[in-house]
Amino acid sequence: MADINSKLEIPLPGGHFDVTTGPIRGSKKIHVGPLGVAMREIHLEPGSGEAPVRVYDTSGPYTDPDVTIDIAAGLAVKRRDWILARGDVEDYAGRAVKPEDNGQLGPDRSGGVPAFPNVARRPLRAKAGMNVSQMHYARRGIITPEMEYVAERENLGRAMLKEYARDGQDWGAAIPDYVTPEFVREEVARGRAIIPSNINHPESEPMAIGRNFLVKINANIGNSAVASDVASEVDKMVWSIRWGADTVMDLSTGRNIHDTREWIIRNSPVPIGTVPIYQALEKVGGIAEDLTWEVFRDTLIEQAEQGVDYFTIHAGVRLPFVPLAAKRVTGIVSRGGSIMAKWCLAHHKESFLYERFDEITEIMKAYDVAYSLGDGLRPGSIADANDEAQFAELYTLGELTKRAWAQDVQVMIEGPGHVPMHKVKENMDKQLEACGEAPFYTLGPLVTDIAPGYDHITSGIGAAMIGWYGTAMLCYVTPKEHLGLPDRDDVKVGVVTYKLAAHAADLAKGHPAAKVRDDALSRARFEFRWRDQFNLSLDPDTAEQYHDQTLPAEGAKSAHFCSMCGPKFCSMKISQEVRDFAAKQNQPSTGFIAAGEAGKLAISEAEAGMVRMSKVFKETGSELYMGAGNREHD
Amino acid sequence: MADINSKLEIPLPGGHFDVTTGPIRGSKKIHVGPLGVAMREIHLEPGSGEAPVRVYDTSGPYTDPDVTIDIAAGLAVKRRDWILARGDVEDYAGRAVKPEDNGQLGPDRSGGVPAFPNVARRPLRAKAGMNVSQMHYARRGIITPEMEYVAERENLGRAMLKEYARDGQDWGAAIPDYVTPEFVREEVARGRAIIPSNINHPESEPMAIGRNFLVKINANIGNSAVASDVASEVDKMVWSIRWGADTVMDLSTGRNIHDTREWIIRNSPVPIGTVPIYQALEKVGGIAEDLTWEVFRDTLIEQAEQGVDYFTIHAGVRLPFVPLAAKRVTGIVSRGGSIMAKWCLAHHKESFLYERFDEITEIMKAYDVAYSLGDGLRPGSIADANDEAQFAELYTLGELTKRAWAQDVQVMIEGPGHVPMHKVKENMDKQLEACGEAPFYTLGPLVTDIAPGYDHITSGIGAAMIGWYGTAMLCYVTPKEHLGLPDRDDVKVGVVTYKLAAHAADLAKGHPAAKVRDDALSRARFEFRWRDQFNLSLDPDTAEQYHDQTLPAEGAKSAHFCSMCGPKFCSMKISQEVRDFAAKQNQPSTGFIAAGEAGKLAISEAEAGMVRMSKVFKETGSELYMGAGNREHD
Repeated sequence: MADINSKLEIPLPGGHFDVTTGPIRGSKKIHVGPLGVAMREIHLEPGSGEAPVRVYDTSGPYTDPDVTIDIAAGLAVKRRDWILARGDVEDYAGRAVKPEDNGQLGPDRSGGVPAFPNVARRPLRAKAGMNVSQMHYARRGIITPEMEYVAERENLGRAMLKEYARDGQDWGAAIPDYVTPEFVREEVARGRAIIPSNINHPESEPMAIGRNFLVKINANIGNSAVASDVASEVDKMVWSIRWGADTVMDLSTGRNIHDTREWIIRNSPVPIGTVPIYQALEKVGGIAEDLTWEVFRDTLIEQAEQGVDYFTIHAGVRLPFVPLAAKRVTGIVSRGGSIMAKWCLAHHKESFLYERFDEITEIMKAYDVAYSLGDGLRPGSIADANDEAQFAELYTLGELTKRAWAQDVQVMIEGPGHVPMHKVKENMDKQLEACGEAPFYTLGPLVTDIAPGYDHITSGIGAAMIGWYGTAMLCYVTPKEHLGLPDRDDVKVGVVTYKLAAHAADLAKGHPAAKVRDDALSRARFEFRWRDQFNLSLDPDTAEQYHDQTLPAEGAKSAHFCSMCGPKFCSMKISQEVRDFAAKQNQPSTGFIAAGEAGKLAISEAEAGMVRMSKVFKETGSELYMGAGNREHD
Repeated sequence: MADINSKLEIPLPGGHFDVTTGPIRGSKKIHVGPLGVAMREIHLEPGSGEAPVRVYDTSGPYTDPDVTIDIAAGLAVKRRDWILARGDVEDYAGRAVKPEDNGQLGPDRSGGVPAFPNVARRPLRAKAGMNVSQMHYARRGIITPEMEYVAERENLGRAMLKEYARDGQDWGAAIPDYVTPEFVREEVARGRAIIPSNINHPESEPMAIGRNFLVKINANIGNSAVASDVASEVDKMVWSIRWGADTVMDLSTGRNIHDTREWIIRNSPVPIGTVPIYQALEKVGGIAEDLTWEVFRDTLIEQAEQGVDYFTIHAGVRLPFVPLAAKRVTGIVSRGGSIMAKWCLAHHKESFLYERFDEITEIMKAYDVAYSLGDGLRPGSIADANDEAQFAELYTLGELTKRAWAQDVQVMIEGPGHVPMHKVKENMDKQLEACGEAPFYTLGPLVTDIAPGYDHITSGIGAAMIGWYGTAMLCYVTPKEHLGLPDRDDVKVGVVTYKLAAHAADLAKGHPAAKVRDDALSRARFEFRWRDQFNLSLDPDTAEQYHDQTLPAEGAKSAHFCSMCGPKFCSMKISQEVRDFAAKQNQPSTGFIAAGEAGKLAISEAEAGMVRMSKVFKETGSELYMGAGNREHD
């Protein structure tokens, strides 16, 4: 079988771009409804009698064989017509790119990153006095195409599942059986969900972040001053959405920030987030004290014009909170938070992000950039979890949420960090209380500090739990966290780990359609449909590869046993016999006593039927092949 | 630096054994107290002013440079003197090894595994009328050396921590500040903890499994009929305990079961568990219906004489429960459970394991083999979690627990499996209720079915949660679960994943000393003591390797920045400045307003001090080097 994850190579002056294209193994891209909402469908073995399973698809046109990808041109701008049709935007000359946007200060700081060749468009912004945020439309009762798209996308196969029993503990969420465009509008209007959708990022496929929708995940990429280049960052973006990243944050620092971001946004079908203070700091030569409102404001405009969908703004790091971090084991671990803390201390002034918050909001609403209110004082160790600094900031973020909402600007709230399991729920409860159910967006949290190299897992535990409790988006952590920059493999492991955590949360919350995929995979497993089992998994390639390490022959793909138990110990096979036997009885209670919940049995009553039943079993299942199955250890 | 994980190669007739020896990076083996309890101590940088950190050590003599390892001779039999000193055992001729013990039935089934060369000892058993179980001693008020060893081992550095604040939610556990031998005796006497310690496994270092002790983990190894060999299984055992496995289960099937087990036990410092029904099935040519009590009993004796410390016995798979599995999505996924189900159906008789349970118990107490009551009806999919079949069996296991306890035999209870997060706690609650707080020993549980290839993580989430709720031992799951046999790398990943889950549970429960290691590592991280950070981690080799992929130079190990942020964005460095600044004020409230929990601030009052404080900051921290630190994404 040809490698389905084919690489598309794009030689360009100054760079050589490879991105992964082609369908995900076993999946077919489909487009649903009048808006052509992209999904993927996993088709199962024809003989299985199973319907195709529809899954949420973040991978964009890269997995669509009908689309020709041209990295140098960028993706199609499907959403642009919707934006223009609303009649509330204007195009304008836009801000000229300056050398310092790419960190070109002083001698020998020139590029290395080719400029994106297709920056032809004049940027859009709201006409004077207008507000183009999805929240603004929602509050005026307008259902936008973006909201319709989200409704279709979130439902997946839900319409087919009317009789599927709801089963979950949703901790007070309000998850509907079926998502209507009106439901999406209501959720956005009340601030309980956001649809990050900068009008200058018309390439994006609309998606919602909110506790009554499927739990989302974010992947971080970005150059650093020490390592990496733009081609590998574009590749990481495409690679991360292939495996399920719902949004991507470009956390580049150092040089070439502007150009790197342009390449990423123009080729991204998912919302892009940034932390503008990083670039602002580069513009002042890395000296935190030299930051000014003017430089920061200029950076917001620059990035809003490029199409960044949400900004992390650390406006909750207020001067009075800074000393609270002094007694911590790990102080301030947020870069943005520490930059602002240093600025506050140096000037002994209140943060300009806090003081100018309403002015920032004015910019956000002109482009529909959503706030991701940064938790600059999140705990960086178990010792610092849930402390005074953290919660002082959280309540400030709640105050700022209301100020942003007063201007109809979309908001989500960033959360920790490092938190032991017994303190995770308090984070969610306090966030819901302080921030009026604005979507919570957490980094993990890591539930122990002692496993560097495995922090995708320490954080995946906390992420699954807090996702269950109500967090709307989980920011991934890769195995390299605390140690180095993630490479391509790390990005994939991080994304898949967070997809499984998010899905576990959806299951536990009782999302109506979440269990469909688990059940389909489990049936495939029980029936030894190996290909279906691989294709239904979050990472079909790895599943197949692991299987083949022990039983590589193609014939083993249809074998009714596996390498764990070999051809003699198959619990699955025996189970099938049990099932067949019971089915043939028609009266399964004959001869058996139903087991009460307490397991209290009147066995003696059963004995009468035993000899007869033994005879029946031998007749129906005589000389049963004792195959082998999915070993679960004993 | 030489590879510290050096391989010891042992050529033998018929086999070539490699095991990994040498100290774990950065650690020193120590022996504490009159019994010489093995621990390891991590020594930190001399300049740090930090005390060495003591950690629980399962690795046995393999990491002790003072011990010469001889796989062909086996480990020293330190515990034998304690056993003989009690005066209640006798040695005897023992059962002769038969060809069928190694699956040598019919033509061409001869070995491939060399016999262990040092099976010289006559086995021990209790003298007639005696009971040699640790529970029996405990109930008679006797504190054994095994109990003393456990007390010392569990405390680690707890004595040094008198003033350490307890912080956790223990869900009704009763974790003492300090573990005394008397506390261990009480826990064993009431059945709340077990010390698996077959008198024929005197090589073992005593350990306890119970909800008031540190959470333990088990690693599974074993040949299968399809793949693997004895040398690699011995290597996996040594490798798994190196990274923290507290017990090891030998789940070999197919041929050479007896000889493989002998090699493993003779070289294992941790308790070894098995599922005797596997070997019994081999003895009857793989035909479940042909199993008899006599064959099974013979197998128990065989394995008890070899020194197996606990037996998984699926005595809860009763005839009336079998039809309950028929309606499941994945039926019966336990191999032992399915074998017994098939036997029950074929004969239409109650399970002989259930009917002969008291006779089995007689054998257990003659060697001090502990029960691990198997959950043959555990759910194998999210769809089947917490169903009638599962709980019917669990309540039967509760009944059997009391029957075993009536003979003073140690018991733990096996648990699921596949369980969505919102149903995990019910498993723990019902187990505590049904089984009188006998230790719970769970496989994960996996919190979703859709991530084959990543089931160490899906199960690590469930394991951390159920460990927090009260599970005493977590059975690891490797990345190969459902797909193939784990290799060496998979074993390590599985063990480390479960160690971090168990530790996260200890933290959340509020074990007095658990947080010491997190705090030490976090301080090292904050202070850029890279070597200390690596050495304090669960897997120092991987941590260092990941770090070196981006910044390989030796100088970077002491650099005050890392590759994530580069030399300009260091949040840790800025935090240090904040701390220094606060310290120099002596009156940290001057000019700052303490942030109340609700973050309500009277900022105006602070303004008076601002200009003055700004001046102070510039005086004390002028031209601060803006280093770089541990990036946590923004």
